[in-house]
Amino acid sequence: ADVAAGKSKSATCAACHGNKGISMIPMYPNLAGQKEQYLVLQIKAFRDGDRKNMVMSPMAAGLSDTDIANLSAYYASLDPAGK
Amino acid sequence: ADVAAGKSKSATCAACHGNKGISMIPMYPNLAGQKEQYLVLQIKAFRDGDRKNMVMSPMAAGLSDTDIANLSAYYASLDPAGK
Repeated sequence: ADVAAGKSKSATCAACHGNKGISMIPMYPNLAGQKEQYLVLQIKAFRDGDRKNMVMSPMAAGLSDTDIANLSAYYASLDPAGK
Repeated sequence: ADVAAGKSKSATCAACHGNKGISMIPMYPNLAGQKEQYLVLQIKAFRDGDRKNMVMSPMAAGLSDTDIANLSAYYASLDPAGK
């Protein structure tokens, strides 16, 4: 996967999940350092309707498998402590 | 919430999510330092059937709201880097 492409794709995500993958909003999860494969599974679940959320479903709707792989690799690569 | 009670309740969870909340299994998420309210929402979703997973649904089935609050507080309190 392409972490740099994931980073540029993540501009929209940062609004809720934070610029360093640490969310500012208690209901929204931190993504920094999360398991890459877990992230792929969850974003696909939101995209394909297996997991439903009013905010995430539309966010994931337009993503390709490549986008999802890159975004997941990017967030997995971030420092879990957000430094 | 009672972090210590959460810790003792987490014995079952540690098998997949790790003793320090960092999962050893790529498909299973790290929980260390995750947002407390997010954890409460997800465990309740698994318990109440709003979010479905073959492994997590039965795990969450027997949990009370207090258990969920304590488990969430415990995992949120852990070092996100797993130290």
